[in-house]
Amino acid sequence: MAAKHVRMGEAALSKVDKINSEVLTFTYGAIVTQLIKDYEDIEEVNKQLENMGYNIGLRLIDELIAKSGIGRCADFRETAEVISKIGFKMFLGISPAIVNWNGEYSEFSLLIDENPLTEFVELPEQYRGLHFSNLICGVIRGAMETLQMKIECKFVKDQLRGDDTTELRVILKEIMADEVPVGYGE
Amino acid sequence: MAAKHVRMGEAALSKVDKINSEVLTFTYGAIVTQLIKDYEDIEEVNKQLENMGYNIGLRLIDELIAKSGIGRCADFRETAEVISKIGFKMFLGISPAIVNWNGEYSEFSLLIDENPLTEFVELPEQYRGLHFSNLICGVIRGAMETLQMKIECKFVKDQLRGDDTTELRVILKEIMADEVPVGYGE
Repeated sequence: MAAKHVRMGEAALSKVDKINSEVLTFTYGAIVTQLIKDYEDIEEVNKQLENMGYNIGLRLIDELIAKSGIGRCADFRETAEVISKIGFKMFLGISPAIVNWNGEYSEFSLLIDENPLTEFVELPEQYRGLHFSNLICGVIRGAMETLQMKIECKFVKDQLRGDDTTELRVILKEIMADEVPVGYGE
Repeated sequence: MAAKHVRMGEAALSKVDKINSEVLTFTYGAIVTQLIKDYEDIEEVNKQLENMGYNIGLRLIDELIAKSGIGRCADFRETAEVISKIGFKMFLGISPAIVNWNGEYSEFSLLIDENPLTEFVELPEQYRGLHFSNLICGVIRGAMETLQMKIECKFVKDQLRGDDTTELRVILKEIMADEVPVGYGE
């Protein structure tokens, strides 16, 4: 299954227009700086970033479905594969490792080693509470909600904050429709 | 001269990491939306976008010099070539046409036909005063200032606002140092 998704992710990536990743890196840095200036409160910045990501996720999921030709996922395990091997691959050029499933297969973590958003970033001490890449959590939440899955997504470890790795936790809270939703179940 | 810069731009572009341009498109759209929400006043949004761009330009010019290996420009005409064929090419994947020089060769326009920042954008009537891509003006101003050239840069036509083309005017105001500056003059 994983190999299929790797191939689909690479094929989708080959179909899209590409630009220099540094433009995104610096533009994203400018957004975060702007939000810190405008809101001052770091928790509020985290929330705004997540919210911006949510709106982006609503758009990107259409692109993902159109360009990858992916059908419905059989279960949440396949959904995780699609997020990592197609979603991240197609939009950020990376495929985070999927680890730390819970017993019910309703929660997993993504390990993000190389993150184009943080390439030149060092967090000053006073911004330790900042989830710099929180936009990504919002993107995943927005994309999944379009597919009728309510999830929670948050950074539980972050190298920018001194952790040994960057770990994003994705928790399935609810499948929202009675009927089998688009992109979930055959 | 133009052909040399085309080759240098393409070579520089081939050296950089690339990502899906839609991530930038949607992320940039989210910034503009956020700024409109936070500032309400459209003129202030234009100013903030330009200012964000300025800070990005200070960073991107280092990348441009490092990746393209470009030396000093002989005159402002060569500078225009470098902006279009190396700068735009390397960071947005496009090379705007250089037109409408003034008699002293101190002002020119760039025609931007395909702009990744505006790919899915339509401006509602009440935002007609918005210079949606004003970040680009700031990037050019920041980059040029690093090279000791004070310029003014502004959108004089914009397809998003109903014009037949999108035209960016670049005006050399001052060369800032007594000595021949980095990137300008042999």
